[in-house]
Amino acid sequence: MRVTGLERKILVIVGDGMADRAVPELDGKTPLQAADTPNMDRLAREGSVGLLDPIRPGVRPGSDTAHLTLLGYDPFEVYPGRGPLEALGAGVEVRPGDVAFRCNFATAEERNGELVVVDRRAGRINEDEGTPKLAETINEEVDLPVEFEFKEAVGHRAVLVLRGGDLSADVTDADPKRVGKPVKDVKPTSDDPAAARTAEIVNEFVRKAYEVLKDHPVNRERERQGKPPANVILPRGAGQLEEVEPFSDRYGMSGAVVAGASLIKGIGRMLGMDVPEDEAITGRKDTDLKRKAELALEALDDHDLVLVNFNAVDEAGHDGDARGKVEMIERMDRELVGTLLEGIDPEETVVCLTADHSTPVAVGDHTADPVPVAIWTADARRDPVEEYDEISAARGCLGRFSGLHLLNVLRDLADRIEKFGA
Amino acid sequence: MRVTGLERKILVIVGDGMADRAVPELDGKTPLQAADTPNMDRLAREGSVGLLDPIRPGVRPGSDTAHLTLLGYDPFEVYPGRGPLEALGAGVEVRPGDVAFRCNFATAEERNGELVVVDRRAGRINEDEGTPKLAETINEEVDLPVEFEFKEAVGHRAVLVLRGGDLSADVTDADPKRVGKPVKDVKPTSDDPAAARTAEIVNEFVRKAYEVLKDHPVNRERERQGKPPANVILPRGAGQLEEVEPFSDRYGMSGAVVAGASLIKGIGRMLGMDVPEDEAITGRKDTDLKRKAELALEALDDHDLVLVNFNAVDEAGHDGDARGKVEMIERMDRELVGTLLEGIDPEETVVCLTADHSTPVAVGDHTADPVPVAIWTADARRDPVEEYDEISAARGCLGRFSGLHLLNVLRDLADRIEKFGA
Repeated sequence: MRVTGLERKILVIVGDGMADRAVPELDGKTPLQAADTPNMDRLAREGSVGLLDPIRPGVRPGSDTAHLTLLGYDPFEVYPGRGPLEALGAGVEVRPGDVAFRCNFATAEERNGELVVVDRRAGRINEDEGTPKLAETINEEVDLPVEFEFKEAVGHRAVLVLRGGDLSADVTDADPKRVGKPVKDVKPTSDDPAAARTAEIVNEFVRKAYEVLKDHPVNRERERQGKPPANVILPRGAGQLEEVEPFSDRYGMSGAVVAGASLIKGIGRMLGMDVPEDEAITGRKDTDLKRKAELALEALDDHDLVLVNFNAVDEAGHDGDARGKVEMIERMDRELVGTLLEGIDPEETVVCLTADHSTPVAVGDHTADPVPVAIWTADARRDPVEEYDEISAARGCLGRFSGLHLLNVLRDLADRIEKFGA
Repeated sequence: MRVTGLERKILVIVGDGMADRAVPELDGKTPLQAADTPNMDRLAREGSVGLLDPIRPGVRPGSDTAHLTLLGYDPFEVYPGRGPLEALGAGVEVRPGDVAFRCNFATAEERNGELVVVDRRAGRINEDEGTPKLAETINEEVDLPVEFEFKEAVGHRAVLVLRGGDLSADVTDADPKRVGKPVKDVKPTSDDPAAARTAEIVNEFVRKAYEVLKDHPVNRERERQGKPPANVILPRGAGQLEEVEPFSDRYGMSGAVVAGASLIKGIGRMLGMDVPEDEAITGRKDTDLKRKAELALEALDDHDLVLVNFNAVDEAGHDGDARGKVEMIERMDRELVGTLLEGIDPEETVVCLTADHSTPVAVGDHTADPVPVAIWTADARRDPVEEYDEISAARGCLGRFSGLHLLNVLRDLADRIEKFGA
């Protein structure tokens, strides 16, 4: 006899890059061990705890590949590269077959017939300084043999999407990555004729964009103010989107992703999930975490699963800032986890707290170390673990398991998964 | 921002067959629990500890398949069988396509037109008693339709390598494995015509080797001394080497294997790693462990990864000798691990202490039980585990994971692995 048909909702809280290693200035503790985190610890104390390999042991995850995994998609099968995800994150439509690039607005000078990059970020130009106008002009005046969409993103960043059959992502970057170097001629990296064609189109785009930007009123004005003009666009990180089964089809659940970082928003959109936007959610330290928690709770009202990501913890890891990371973790505990818990009934919801990967402050980049996971719902098994951190987690009742299985584990606790067999 | 480019070196210390089960004469402890191992315990106390499945749970590893795994190769994909590994270990070149055999020098008598084996080890003949001369005569005087190389190995052992296209390892042994039985006619075990051809060639080798050995001066002298002549060669364990990506190509690291046992040396050579030789390193109890430690430290000077194996612990397990195993573990701790630690800086090196498999004294053979692993480097996560043994290891912060992932876990800690995604 089946006692209940619970159909709980699922809330996944991700502290981006939150896990770490032994930090000398924290007396050999990790930032999670050193931080005061009463709300995270409550999830550990009242829930089931374990160690999660975001992808698999010894694989250094990107935030994008790790989030795909946490959402039940094997990144070795579906990862499209960063270009399409950034484009989706910036709100541009990317369809299967499209090739997308991350771009910089940059400053170049003509020297002996070459375009030499003198500032890769065009003096850190941003939306308020006119990047939307520059993008508009490019879309209106540049003419290419394929359909394209160019859009400004955060700060000096932008995205370019090429559309219209017979395209390939097997092309090099136009971005020379260093100042003093000429804009690179984009070249095919495979024998596929589509790669040669795509490379030619990107080179044409770079040339034509320069022609319409170099005397653009926005740049004239910047020059008058003594600022470097944003006169060249540097595409890089080509990626082609393939057909992906939407999250709702694959798992029979509606889903939303609440995030500020465009990469994570791009993941949500790639999987056909809702990605609510809010000006207070920036993907940086200045983000309004309480507002983010409220957005996630609102999304949980009309979605079966909500993933909420806090990116600034990862930034502190990349900066090698141990104290800053502790501070960000404590802020996340108070403002994000605390606010969320006030609005959650564990009878009706499965809450999962985890990280997408480790970003040890001593390394300043993502590593493959496993991350702690706490799963909290009314009938979750309780183990003796009372704190949420990398070391305590290893003593939890979930043991160590792969992130590829996490979503199904949560669906099981949410009573949303079929029995295999009789 | 990336804070460091550590590029640490990696040292893997393998106590062969070191893990065990509950031993009654040790009050239910394992030999690792019973032994006094201050240096191993230091690695546990200051490092991250866990349980490792050398291949996967419930798979009884050979030392060869386990070492392949520890070095990042799936033995289900690349294991060539023991013949090629012993041949490589004995210093014979084995190329892709070659078929190799382990052999014994044995004693046979002609009875009713059959060659009957009367001593499978020819009175434990060894190198000092003339096996190199016998091998030389075989290589000079035996004529086969394919190229071959025959070489003496340790004691009564030898190896045979057949080369020259259209060969197969699908053949039975010539070794009857018991005295009083005739030398076996080698037969093909598959329909592959190459198997029938290879079987014929091996039979021809056995016949022709007997003809040149039976009246060999070395054997005449043995008979004068009342010792059994080494007049027959018994090939067994056919294996064919396939093309394997060298370790340095696959992992972008130079590597060395420091071992006395020919099987382990063969693994190193199969993967294109350096295998330093030293007369004091015997692969047996009489090996000079301090010299082995020095060799490993020297190898670490000009290699990115060094694996050092101590085989005598496994021998004690095979002999069912609990006290002897405790003694060998304590010797390994003092002479090998202790000497190694004196020469290692954890800021610059990742040290991994583990076993390739369990060889419980009560079983006298390899079993599938997981083995303890300790990983020690400057920023390794610290857990409360203070001792290196099978039971304590299960409480460590690494949890339980597969040996197939170990090398990447170490490469991650050594900062020698690329990020997958952004």
